Amino acid sequence: MGKKEVNIGLIGFGTVGTGVVRLVHAYQEDLYKQTGVSIHIERILIKDPLKERPLSVQHGLLTTDPSTLLNDPNIDIVIEVMGGIEPAKTYIQKALEKGKHVVTANKDLMALYGDELLQLAARCGCDLYYEASVAGGIPILKTITDGFSSDRITKMIGIVNGTTNYILTKMMREAVSFEEALKEAQRLGYAEQDPTSDVDGLDAARKMAILASLGFHTGINVDDVSCKGIGGITVEDLNFAKQLGYTMKLVGIAKRDEWGIEVSVEPTLVKDTHPLAAVNDVFNAVYVYGEAVGETMFYGPGAGELPTATAVLSDLVSVVKNIQLGVTGKHMPLSYSEKVLKGKETIYAKFFLRLIVQDECGVLAKIAEWMAEEEISLEKVFQKPYIGDQSQAELILVTHFASKKSIEHVLDLLKQSDFIKEVKSCYRVEG
Amino acid sequence: MGKKEVNIGLIGFGTVGTGVVRLVHAYQEDLYKQTGVSIHIERILIKDPLKERPLSVQHGLLTTDPSTLLNDPNIDIVIEVMGGIEPAKTYIQKALEKGKHVVTANKDLMALYGDELLQLAARCGCDLYYEASVAGGIPILKTITDGFSSDRITKMIGIVNGTTNYILTKMMREAVSFEEALKEAQRLGYAEQDPTSDVDGLDAARKMAILASLGFHTGINVDDVSCKGIGGITVEDLNFAKQLGYTMKLVGIAKRDEWGIEVSVEPTLVKDTHPLAAVNDVFNAVYVYGEAVGETMFYGPGAGELPTATAVLSDLVSVVKNIQLGVTGKHMPLSYSEKVLKGKETIYAKFFLRLIVQDECGVLAKIAEWMAEEEISLEKVFQKPYIGDQSQAELILVTHFASKKSIEHVLDLLKQSDFIKEVKSCYRVEG
Repeated sequence: MGKKEVNIGLIGFGTVGTGVVRLVHAYQEDLYKQTGVSIHIERILIKDPLKERPLSVQHGLLTTDPSTLLNDPNIDIVIEVMGGIEPAKTYIQKALEKGKHVVTANKDLMALYGDELLQLAARCGCDLYYEASVAGGIPILKTITDGFSSDRITKMIGIVNGTTNYILTKMMREAVSFEEALKEAQRLGYAEQDPTSDVDGLDAARKMAILASLGFHTGINVDDVSCKGIGGITVEDLNFAKQLGYTMKLVGIAKRDEWGIEVSVEPTLVKDTHPLAAVNDVFNAVYVYGEAVGETMFYGPGAGELPTATAVLSDLVSVVKNIQLGVTGKHMPLSYSEKVLKGKETIYAKFFLRLIVQDECGVLAKIAEWMAEEEISLEKVFQKPYIGDQSQAELILVTHFASKKSIEHVLDLLKQSDFIKEVKSCYRVEG
Repeated sequence: MGKKEVNIGLIGFGTVGTGVVRLVHAYQEDLYKQTGVSIHIERILIKDPLKERPLSVQHGLLTTDPSTLLNDPNIDIVIEVMGGIEPAKTYIQKALEKGKHVVTANKDLMALYGDELLQLAARCGCDLYYEASVAGGIPILKTITDGFSSDRITKMIGIVNGTTNYILTKMMREAVSFEEALKEAQRLGYAEQDPTSDVDGLDAARKMAILASLGFHTGINVDDVSCKGIGGITVEDLNFAKQLGYTMKLVGIAKRDEWGIEVSVEPTLVKDTHPLAAVNDVFNAVYVYGEAVGETMFYGPGAGELPTATAVLSDLVSVVKNIQLGVTGKHMPLSYSEKVLKGKETIYAKFFLRLIVQDECGVLAKIAEWMAEEEISLEKVFQKPYIGDQSQAELILVTHFASKKSIEHVLDLLKQSDFIKEVKSCYRVEG
């Protein structure tokens, strides 16, 4: 029980970094009461010394030289909020090797090298915490590691990307196109000028890799996550979904069963009565199903300066408490289960299909026959004349549980068939 | 890093106790991987040795003599799931004094004597955890102490009693009376034969006292919670609420601002767009507003054998980890803020009023005048002929923010007035 002051080296001084500095100052007294230690920001590593910043800090605090921060023996904890793989990875490794604890918000890095870095931290006797990397303001990593330590999580469904959730909410509510909704999201600062990693689902895939690793105690890498974005979703899809009682969400699903683990991110129709269906705008939520506890859900802001900064600071408080008790490097959530990924033949889901078909006798029979051969049965069928062409019909099918392999096989047959004009869409269905 | 085995003494072998024994057996291997220790149930204290139990345990495990458990030096951790104040309190005190760590699910006890017992635990160098005492399957206490350690919680709203939430959900959905809904809840085992403590809000008040103490770092006692039950709610109230876009919930509210702290439990009209409005049936949820993080919500099962048992076991895992690291008795969430409770003049809320009035000129003007004198302005006014009597009208008012003192004063004036036939109801409004 030694220290009276803990010194922080901050790497990165963008949105989250600014939030961290603001909160450390605003909550100085509360933090002291919780930890018995004053928290002091000793140095901030920046790239561009000429850049104008929303927050002015004491002269001499800023540096562009990483070694003045990483080699400073006074610095106990490094907070990395610069993002990206390199040089962040090298900085974190060096910090750990020098015996400095690390708090990071870096999902790119943790989704790719989480296991490696956690093991390095454990070897160095250092803490490495990363609550802010998933669902900003929701303390979901702590909840999974501590709250669910006594249960077996079998399923997690996450709305973990605020940008796409905003776009889909707007498309559902106002029946505007994807392009229009994206433009509005950019105007409001919810989407970046290059929105690719959000829209394509990659950002969500990184977060799901982190959640799956923790929840299933194994090293799931972002490359293990099958991923599909929201770019192709049309207002027509959403209208049909609404009529059938579904809400479109970009969800990440991580499941484990006797065959292994599956992790995916894809546009999914969520039943209106499912708690995730009401998670709108830029909000995030993670639904966790535990074998013993059943259904739970954790909801909150997924990004933003202060929400993300609180996540960073809650990790900081944990590290400081560990320092005071002399138990750093002991709480790493290291993997202990073998990674067995499922193939398409054991990934089961319900599916929504929208087809344009020749409006003639026997078409539905043929489709049903192909489905039956793959042991797919139908939960809902809905047909109406196709507005584009009177001789054609629009057919909506919702299946019961089917394997991904079976549904892909049927989709191939449909696409090759003469009497199917077009496979407009195929989405997973949840709830 | 010493022990290979941790021995448990279980006090109480009802629903939750049975769940604990089941899970300790079912998850033996997972628990070992998490903690490096085998967890062994050494002794179970019961009241009635002749009672038939759903789970049969090894001969010699059961005892009716508390001293054989409390004085057994082999027992490291006591799990108390018998409930009630005495003898539970004495057992817990004795266990702590003997250096045994305690995990309890006892909300009655923690709501009344939480501060005292936590201080005793800290003095004895022992852990005292009580996650299962609030909202069974939701790890809300860990979330507040760890996840929000870096933020200033200003408001918590909890649906923390499953019985009343089931009754209100049924009344809203099916327009059945309170009595009918209660009977159905009893038939399904959601309500006890004597449902008083649920229906009157006392159970929820206990949980709000625990939440407020943790969230505001001060000792809030159940006696500090103002409490009103759901017994008087009518189907008519619910119909009007629905028309105006509200859902009736029994909510606990804990707020703090520059004037102090308020904690209450009362039937409240929650706006349909608020995340709590969608929390139905026996589910629980706690909405937490942090100054920096903003809106968050935590949702899950509030009771039941296995959900509650997982909460107990997650505490057990925490204690075992602390034992292994030699840091027991260091994580007690002790109070450090002064308790300042607000008076009615600084408790502000919106209110919904339903009145039966003489249908004559000047009535609304008079009511509006009384309101104006108390600086209460109206957000919504809705009038319709009263079915019971043609010369009377039914008047629904929703106010803007008003102090509890002001609204009570206006209610007094209304009750004394000749042209107000009846004040049918007055509810708090949230969101």
